[in-house]
Amino acid sequence: MAGALPVSPLAPKGGFPDLPVIDGVRFATIAAGIKYRGRADVMLAELASGTTIAGTFTRSRTRAAPVLDCQAKLGEASDGPAAILVNSGNANAFTGIKGVEAVQAVTAAVASETGVPQERVFTASTGVIGEPLPHERITTVISKLGSSLSPDGIADAAKAIMTTDTFPKGATRSVEIDGKTVSVAGIAKGSGMIAPDMATMLVYIFTDAKISFDLLQRYTADMCDATFNKITVDSDTSTSDTLLVAATGASGADIDQATVKGKAAFVRALHEVMLDLAHQVVRDGEGATKFVTIDVRSAKTKDDAQLVAFSIANSPLVKTAVAGEDPNWGRVVMAVGKSGAEADRDRLSIWFGDVEVARNGQVSPDYVEANAAAHMKGDEITIRVDLGLGDMGATVWTCDLTTQYIAINADYRS
Amino acid sequence: MAGALPVSPLAPKGGFPDLPVIDGVRFATIAAGIKYRGRADVMLAELASGTTIAGTFTRSRTRAAPVLDCQAKLGEASDGPAAILVNSGNANAFTGIKGVEAVQAVTAAVASETGVPQERVFTASTGVIGEPLPHERITTVISKLGSSLSPDGIADAAKAIMTTDTFPKGATRSVEIDGKTVSVAGIAKGSGMIAPDMATMLVYIFTDAKISFDLLQRYTADMCDATFNKITVDSDTSTSDTLLVAATGASGADIDQATVKGKAAFVRALHEVMLDLAHQVVRDGEGATKFVTIDVRSAKTKDDAQLVAFSIANSPLVKTAVAGEDPNWGRVVMAVGKSGAEADRDRLSIWFGDVEVARNGQVSPDYVEANAAAHMKGDEITIRVDLGLGDMGATVWTCDLTTQYIAINADYRS
Repeated sequence: MAGALPVSPLAPKGGFPDLPVIDGVRFATIAAGIKYRGRADVMLAELASGTTIAGTFTRSRTRAAPVLDCQAKLGEASDGPAAILVNSGNANAFTGIKGVEAVQAVTAAVASETGVPQERVFTASTGVIGEPLPHERITTVISKLGSSLSPDGIADAAKAIMTTDTFPKGATRSVEIDGKTVSVAGIAKGSGMIAPDMATMLVYIFTDAKISFDLLQRYTADMCDATFNKITVDSDTSTSDTLLVAATGASGADIDQATVKGKAAFVRALHEVMLDLAHQVVRDGEGATKFVTIDVRSAKTKDDAQLVAFSIANSPLVKTAVAGEDPNWGRVVMAVGKSGAEADRDRLSIWFGDVEVARNGQVSPDYVEANAAAHMKGDEITIRVDLGLGDMGATVWTCDLTTQYIAINADYRS
Repeated sequence: MAGALPVSPLAPKGGFPDLPVIDGVRFATIAAGIKYRGRADVMLAELASGTTIAGTFTRSRTRAAPVLDCQAKLGEASDGPAAILVNSGNANAFTGIKGVEAVQAVTAAVASETGVPQERVFTASTGVIGEPLPHERITTVISKLGSSLSPDGIADAAKAIMTTDTFPKGATRSVEIDGKTVSVAGIAKGSGMIAPDMATMLVYIFTDAKISFDLLQRYTADMCDATFNKITVDSDTSTSDTLLVAATGASGADIDQATVKGKAAFVRALHEVMLDLAHQVVRDGEGATKFVTIDVRSAKTKDDAQLVAFSIANSPLVKTAVAGEDPNWGRVVMAVGKSGAEADRDRLSIWFGDVEVARNGQVSPDYVEANAAAHMKGDEITIRVDLGLGDMGATVWTCDLTTQYIAINADYRS
């Protein structure tokens, strides 16, 4: 399937960005023939001694074996050398004891090839659920992978982890922290089965900052919540979501010892890279033709704001209206009503872009549908809702629901 | 839009059933030109003195004016004469004070024409949200409606309340209760914006049983929970859902005074009529080509069972797999995992029809995909999940998600 789909019309215009080399990280990719033919489907990242790694994972109750393995390994702080191996084409999920054995085999092979302790080898698998991972196809190519590691292979790595993605996803930011330059560079994959918690994605972010596991884990969890936990394509949550942030320390900039301003600069860079990648995942939402921002304001509580925002973002009727370029604000009202959040129909106001369509529970006095319809014709749609009840807000991002989504998903496996 | 769509392939083979006359109920319909042209879009039901009326309604926080009016009126028990007026084409929802005035105008006109007290005139409106109801188009035809009331107009009434429905929906059961024959006959509309609570529907059920308001309300709420609250087409919940059960008492069978067996017979008839109508709504789900039963067993709690069942039933990835006739049980695993219910991956078993596809967290040892694929080719699909944790279960009904759903909803208003 991958490669057969046309590139999303919402793909970033400039193509894959120029990602900087992060000192202490080397990449390799290879075509192991796990499922796809004629393309790289395994990537290995090797991290130098001194690297701390933080992460967040799917909250699914049916987590895949690699996820459980990563979670167990992340539990203990360490800054020894490390490795990340990812395959596409098979999720190694719901594979029972065979799944555990596959993780064991792959991590042992990576450890043996790279000299990284096995408890610092992290894996992820993405693709079809329920079929045993043919792990020997990976272990037989490990030495080839190991011998081709290179500092500037990150763009190839972004391609190797794709499944139904129509473009590889990368983002970077650099900041000055107390006189030293710190770079953050990340890659991601994901386009369907995307919803909180965490959306269905694999995300790997590398930085040359020096930072303790505890602080990096806190920043990672917070920024993940503000970015990847605020997007949805189809409300479906994967069994395999994994986000890892690896900090090699090579820049010498020590975040734990940095000033408040220095810490803030690092967090901002991390946030921007994650938000950029999260938006790219939505832009590659299966069948997407519109990038939609849902902006909810004046809710009584933050939870209410988020409930309303996701209720709108996940509503098939709202998403199909967006696909049809129809400013059908009645469906927004419906989605607010069903959200479970406190809402008062007669205080509700709604905008499409800058066009106020409804105020205090009825159509705006000077509403002209042609204006809202004009906004809907663009490929960046904003739906703003003011609940008129309090001062809490939430913003989430999604895409429209098109016949192409159905076409992709009605026969993804075949 | 209505009438333009081909009849659902899942429509009952026999067409609209022969519904019995319920003594004490008369119907009339008329083409008032509210939105549709060339078809009846208003129906009036008149109920004789002695009729008790129970009801359940959408739990949306943005309920439409007619819903709020009905709820207020149902609050007090009464068995005087009553009337129900329903229009299609406009939902009179999110219309502010104008919406309240429209309900006031219509109920006053019905009261004046029929002699029914205004506080016993119930209305419902279904169609586009947010546009003021042109209520004068209804009030000007009230006298024509009143003069054409007839005991056997229920089939026409079922047609008049349709919107994107592709077939009218009716069901009936008769039972002997303590030596007397009691008939129950109901009609419904609904095909999109269907989800609990209550699914997005209008349902009117008539019976000649004699029954107190309190008992009828209890039975109605319980049976609604077992039927209409167990279906979903698209997880979207309407602002206008209304179910009314009117009992004229004309049969002389007094349910309050009946034996336990007599009461049970009445409840069973009510349950069967509601279930029949609920299934017809799913069968007319927008774009549906498969009727899907989701059967969850061995959950720890009833709530968990229902969470899992609806998580599967509402998953776009499961629904598109069903559309593609793909026994993609990995997506069922995913939906169990994201449901929020307690689940243990390694105790989970899954069947498509009678074919066990997964047992205890991995593919079944003797699974042959061709067998599951054969089941998926039918138009009645069953997905059974055993959580292996307890003894509670839930069954819900849904349909597949097809490109036709998108086509219908991307331009419903235009």
